[in-house]
Amino acid sequence: MAGRVKNDSEASRRLRNVLVIDVGGTHVKILVTGKRTARKIPSGPTMTAQNMVEAVKQFAADWSYEVISLGFPGAVRGGRPTAEPKNLATGWVGFDFRQAFGCPVKVLNDAAMQALGSYEGDRMLFLGLGTGLGSALITDGVLVPMELAHLRYRKDGTYEDYVGLRGLKRYGKKKWRRYVEDVVMALKNALQADYVVLGGGNAKKLKQLPKGIRLGDNDHAFTGGFRLWEEVWKDERACCVVQSGGAREERGRRTP
Amino acid sequence: MAGRVKNDSEASRRLRNVLVIDVGGTHVKILVTGKRTARKIPSGPTMTAQNMVEAVKQFAADWSYEVISLGFPGAVRGGRPTAEPKNLATGWVGFDFRQAFGCPVKVLNDAAMQALGSYEGDRMLFLGLGTGLGSALITDGVLVPMELAHLRYRKDGTYEDYVGLRGLKRYGKKKWRRYVEDVVMALKNALQADYVVLGGGNAKKLKQLPKGIRLGDNDHAFTGGFRLWEEVWKDERACCVVQSGGAREERGRRTP
Repeated sequence: MAGRVKNDSEASRRLRNVLVIDVGGTHVKILVTGKRTARKIPSGPTMTAQNMVEAVKQFAADWSYEVISLGFPGAVRGGRPTAEPKNLATGWVGFDFRQAFGCPVKVLNDAAMQALGSYEGDRMLFLGLGTGLGSALITDGVLVPMELAHLRYRKDGTYEDYVGLRGLKRYGKKKWRRYVEDVVMALKNALQADYVVLGGGNAKKLKQLPKGIRLGDNDHAFTGGFRLWEEVWKDERACCVVQSGGAREERGRRTP
Repeated sequence: MAGRVKNDSEASRRLRNVLVIDVGGTHVKILVTGKRTARKIPSGPTMTAQNMVEAVKQFAADWSYEVISLGFPGAVRGGRPTAEPKNLATGWVGFDFRQAFGCPVKVLNDAAMQALGSYEGDRMLFLGLGTGLGSALITDGVLVPMELAHLRYRKDGTYEDYVGLRGLKRYGKKKWRRYVEDVVMALKNALQADYVVLGGGNAKKLKQLPKGIRLGDNDHAFTGGFRLWEEVWKDERACCVVQSGGAREERGRRTP
């Protein structure tokens, strides 16, 4: 239970040092247990998985860590990327991260990792407003990565077409905000979420947020990466227990 | 763990006798632990919660039970209906089922109850094709009741408008089947489900089912009701652990 209430870095240190790697289309950001400032490595369409590993090893050479959490910008199943990332080079599917780094590596979808770091209990829907639309639900202590982006929203497009970067460019900030609000409230209701956390680079372009909608923080990706090693990783589908057994029991006790 | 592999009735009997009540718009169906044949009580727009209790007590007078599972045709939160049912009389919200029956009653959304009875592991999406469109996801041992029905599907309607009873009547069986297939595959992908179980009265009107789509069985509602008392009920939001701690550990062990 300690991990839920204590500072993440403190809790992790008692276990082991975690290197969190947040792989993005323009930068790879890294942070290690105990440090406050992330380091940024340029990425882009020429970066293979092998390039990333070499760059990260170099940039983290003076940091000590025993395990790694890796947020990957694409679909992950069973702790492995299942498709090459859209904005990076290939060579990610089938890559052996454990061998390349020489230590245990947990790979998670990047939106799921940020969701995990943003979680404050109850049922949370996380939506990442970036180039695309990332999505994950956490309920009842279980992280459920989703792919809501490609569901049809209007006649001529999906959710991602309207609230992703393409939508922002096509419709302009004002209309885009209205679409975001509509999509967020519709999905909140459909998935019966208690609250929604909006992350991703474009979330800060929003103005007023309706009740039950909170702004995320990109640093939550690191929090999520640290949390990944605090708790029991128990499913081959990138699902993990967010709350410990103790917390579960405590919640159960409130219900007759 | 026993409850997962053993016959439901057997497992329940060792615990206590459960009366399962499946409340529907035309009938209330009941079954008790150890019996094979459900009893049907006519319902309809004049049936209040109090009427239902009286009728059930009468029809189940020769059955012995210590606890009850009640599948309710509408939204349920914290084990209580949060809105009056559409096809019955009012008086359901705020009703004290425990006091009325004189024993513990677990109230669950009806689609969620059938989902629970249909679950065969991994991540399952349950869709109930009835008057409306019921939905629930079970993943990683946790039941997540949803309200996907009212999400926009096409310009002029929601998922429910197309694949619910209105859609079947409006578009005819042939077109309706195509809409069902499209909606089912889209939602399966969006929620990253390993398989979909289709329940509800209209599921049998489908012909061929695509890979990964299975037909449910209305009796699964009873199985779900029995399961509800076999496992740990651990959340005030109608979520429950489907797998025991033992099963969780076993799955975890497969993952490094």
